[in-house]
Amino acid sequence: MLKRYLPILTWLPHYTRRLCAADLLAGIIVTIMVIPQSLAYALLAGLPAVVGLYASILPLLAYTLLGTSRTLAVGPVAIVALMTGAALAGVATPGTPEYLQAALALSLLSGLMLVLMGLARLGFMANFLSHPVISGFLTASGLLIAAGQAGHLLGIPGGGYTLLEQLLSLAGDLDQTHWPTLAIGGGSLAFLVAVRRYGQASLRRLGLPANLAGLLTRSGPVLAVVVTTLVTWRLGLDRAGVAVIGEIPRGLPPLTLPGFDSTLWRALLMPALLISVVGFVESVSMAQMLAARRRERLSPNQELLGLGGANLTAAFSAGMPVTGGLSRTVINYDAGARTPMAGVFAALGIGLVTLALTPWLYYLPIATLAATITVAILTLVDIPMLRQTWRYSRGDFAAMAVTILLTLTEGVELGILAGVTLSIGLFLYRTSRPHCALVGRVPGTEHFRNPERHEVETLGHVAFLRVDESLYFANARYLEDTVLELVAARPGLEHVVLICSAVNLIDASALESLDAINARLKEAEVTLHLAEVKGPVMDRLKHSDFLDDLGGRVFLSTYAAWSELKGRGAEHDAAAG
Amino acid sequence: MLKRYLPILTWLPHYTRRLCAADLLAGIIVTIMVIPQSLAYALLAGLPAVVGLYASILPLLAYTLLGTSRTLAVGPVAIVALMTGAALAGVATPGTPEYLQAALALSLLSGLMLVLMGLARLGFMANFLSHPVISGFLTASGLLIAAGQAGHLLGIPGGGYTLLEQLLSLAGDLDQTHWPTLAIGGGSLAFLVAVRRYGQASLRRLGLPANLAGLLTRSGPVLAVVVTTLVTWRLGLDRAGVAVIGEIPRGLPPLTLPGFDSTLWRALLMPALLISVVGFVESVSMAQMLAARRRERLSPNQELLGLGGANLTAAFSAGMPVTGGLSRTVINYDAGARTPMAGVFAALGIGLVTLALTPWLYYLPIATLAATITVAILTLVDIPMLRQTWRYSRGDFAAMAVTILLTLTEGVELGILAGVTLSIGLFLYRTSRPHCALVGRVPGTEHFRNPERHEVETLGHVAFLRVDESLYFANARYLEDTVLELVAARPGLEHVVLICSAVNLIDASALESLDAINARLKEAEVTLHLAEVKGPVMDRLKHSDFLDDLGGRVFLSTYAAWSELKGRGAEHDAAAG
Repeated sequence: MLKRYLPILTWLPHYTRRLCAADLLAGIIVTIMVIPQSLAYALLAGLPAVVGLYASILPLLAYTLLGTSRTLAVGPVAIVALMTGAALAGVATPGTPEYLQAALALSLLSGLMLVLMGLARLGFMANFLSHPVISGFLTASGLLIAAGQAGHLLGIPGGGYTLLEQLLSLAGDLDQTHWPTLAIGGGSLAFLVAVRRYGQASLRRLGLPANLAGLLTRSGPVLAVVVTTLVTWRLGLDRAGVAVIGEIPRGLPPLTLPGFDSTLWRALLMPALLISVVGFVESVSMAQMLAARRRERLSPNQELLGLGGANLTAAFSAGMPVTGGLSRTVINYDAGARTPMAGVFAALGIGLVTLALTPWLYYLPIATLAATITVAILTLVDIPMLRQTWRYSRGDFAAMAVTILLTLTEGVELGILAGVTLSIGLFLYRTSRPHCALVGRVPGTEHFRNPERHEVETLGHVAFLRVDESLYFANARYLEDTVLELVAARPGLEHVVLICSAVNLIDASALESLDAINARLKEAEVTLHLAEVKGPVMDRLKHSDFLDDLGGRVFLSTYAAWSELKGRGAEHDAAAG
Repeated sequence: MLKRYLPILTWLPHYTRRLCAADLLAGIIVTIMVIPQSLAYALLAGLPAVVGLYASILPLLAYTLLGTSRTLAVGPVAIVALMTGAALAGVATPGTPEYLQAALALSLLSGLMLVLMGLARLGFMANFLSHPVISGFLTASGLLIAAGQAGHLLGIPGGGYTLLEQLLSLAGDLDQTHWPTLAIGGGSLAFLVAVRRYGQASLRRLGLPANLAGLLTRSGPVLAVVVTTLVTWRLGLDRAGVAVIGEIPRGLPPLTLPGFDSTLWRALLMPALLISVVGFVESVSMAQMLAARRRERLSPNQELLGLGGANLTAAFSAGMPVTGGLSRTVINYDAGARTPMAGVFAALGIGLVTLALTPWLYYLPIATLAATITVAILTLVDIPMLRQTWRYSRGDFAAMAVTILLTLTEGVELGILAGVTLSIGLFLYRTSRPHCALVGRVPGTEHFRNPERHEVETLGHVAFLRVDESLYFANARYLEDTVLELVAARPGLEHVVLICSAVNLIDASALESLDAINARLKEAEVTLHLAEVKGPVMDRLKHSDFLDDLGGRVFLSTYAAWSELKGRGAEHDAAAG
């Protein structure tokens, strides 16, 4: 029981020195790598840079205690930072103490929701974010974030939370472009793009092993940060107007207590829910992919508790909403992390930096951070996916397109809500008008298929109707109409066999419809039979009066119905002739 | 084209004198019968009694032009009146001009929504009100209405829109019971219950034909109205404190123009939508039942236009929201109506009454109307249905119980919304965790079933996995987990055959999962095959790269897969042996 809720107990007792060495190395590498992005994502959310560091310390420890992934690295991530910024902009002004308070309240609410969802075992809810919706949301968010960073790269104010606002604001300020900032930002951007595109191949050509080449390539941002910071310091560019990180309060994260404010909390409820779900989906899908590679198991419900714990901790240690981040997790994994202890080492490392080394970050230019965010975020933008989805399914494409459009024009919350609603609506619409086929027997077999697609034999006095959907309230009346039209159109019909191989559920509304169909067919002197009713559906039907009232029989297979009714047809034909 | 939108053109050219005679008789009978209920339902909605008459004149003409049912009678009905009252209470005070204006705005909005839904062909949306939700809603509404009428029967004020409020208010005023009112109300109630229970049988025992006996039984309320009105007038009971209808303005309905008020309209949007949908469902399901009896066809989308037109007309003629009413339609049908012209005659009849005969209604006691409402409404309360639904399906029962409870405690709007949301949620939850069965061959046949339920043969090196659900975003990951667990649990496995007989759809998310399953099985040296993929699903798959990457084959039938792979298994077994 304790092990279930504290997964640390499953691996800590077997912790060895060898594992420790691997985790320690990974922890050091992660510390160095994630400092720039932690600062950058805090700024992206409109928060002071140091908040990003605070959110990368204690929340990691909470996840280590509660999480089930061995390699997931928790902290501020781009999408959640974007959503945090959008949510907070609605309730407070950046730079004010209220804004900081709201960030804490958001972390707290998000943490509470994740913990509650975990305790209620609602991990499955994440599945309702369909792949096209997630993919569309990430693409649109990537574009939004990139547009937001363009101002920092050019040294102009910029602003706005929709793409149009951002582009208009950029266009208006374009004449104020600050050239030294653009030099640093543009230079960093070009360097990072080059490293990402050619780095790994070049390093391998120099004879480096793949692992090391990958890790060095990923350290491109660190190099850019070090070089531009030194340049800015030596040339005194901050006095020339290049925006830098500036003073960062030294010391460990303070203990914070998010106050209760019912108006604020109510305003943040929906954003907190969306941040929780999106963060959870992003985190758990990546963790599952990595777990599968190492043949480890992951518990989505326990992951909810782990991420919930991390967010609660963030709320009490001056942080911001966090989740498992793609880039930091990949760094952790590639650096050889073996257990969550790597996270503990990374937390200690970042804690040390916060305690002692923040003055070194004074001259770090914001433009460099903007360049690292831009390069990282553009990997989320997946344009080929649009074409692929269009080819495969118009419905899925619609969900994706609506998510992208609304995220870009109306903001992240409305975008994702509309995407989810639309994809559920489309699924319900599809199931409300099920595909029905009048099937015939593939000659020489016991297999029945659609005559429009296969050569089949049919019987004149028996209709074999296959309904390709569970029968439930949304399509119950449709089934009624289909069967009654069929009977009206074929006067010679004596038997209707409803093939239920695709019927996985018959709910109370559909049962009413079946009752009605049975009664009407009786009036028309047509007998209703069922075939291939599945076990669970049959069990259910036995709890109703339907089987007693049914005019015909329930056949085990369509072929059994064919054999039986074909014979009766012969009698009938003989009698008629 | 014109005929499609004006169904009157399909029957009016063939109208004969014989049809006219039948319709005229039905029109006269309906006029007499529906006057009490029209008055009563207007009062139920908190409106002056005459509004019920107005709403039974011009809206009938609009429906005659646009509707497709031959026998549907449109007018104020109990449920819609209850919902109207609840909606208006939120925005105005009964008895004020604002309240009347709000009623017009509600009719207008409801009419607009119905017309828009009809033009957009959204008639199918009504199917999302599942049978248990409707049944639960009607039961709860019936109880609410009955409790609301108790005050009128006792001659005490009463009030409130939830059952608790109503009962508390009744209990508080019980000592003020007005005995003459109770005598009239209680007497009418006892008479109506007796007529309903024993009337038809007694009259038939007296030798009357079934039809006439039925019609006479239904005229019980008219008799009660006439008798109690005469008694009240002769004994001057109104001066003794018995509430009567009183002065009704004489004359045809005035032309009204609902003014545009954005605050009011916004507040009424959701109630109008619910009234439209509930009214439409009530109306169309009854009309379909009657149409089927006479083998006529009904177009749900055109019905939306017909009811929409009726509500728009109500908005412009001092009316209230209307729909096809159960009792007035049954009266119309039993009285022998053959075409919608019967509705025209009824409209003329009620118009005449409004023009000239309203003084006769002065002494009609409210308590008598309360008694007629109570008796009519209690037929909606369907308690055995609760037990039946519990027996058949716990999920459907939950939707029903929640609808009842919330309708009683929180009001009609929240009740029905919660019921719909819950039933959709339950369906999605069910489909998100599909039933999966490892099937085997029923010996001597080509049929495959679950070994837990049937005697079957299986193969050690081939798993036949039948997934009993369409594959879509909500269950894509679940399928991945199921297949991978299966492979992990059976090391000897060489082939997995996914039987897709119940898979009616594979969306883009599920396609991703299938891709992932295929890739992982390849790594584990297990071959993935598909069997019984349906035509439409196969067409879709051909638009993706999945079939090129698939390790195995797509078999027409499970038996074909069995024959093919069993042979390979023999080779393998031989090699192993």
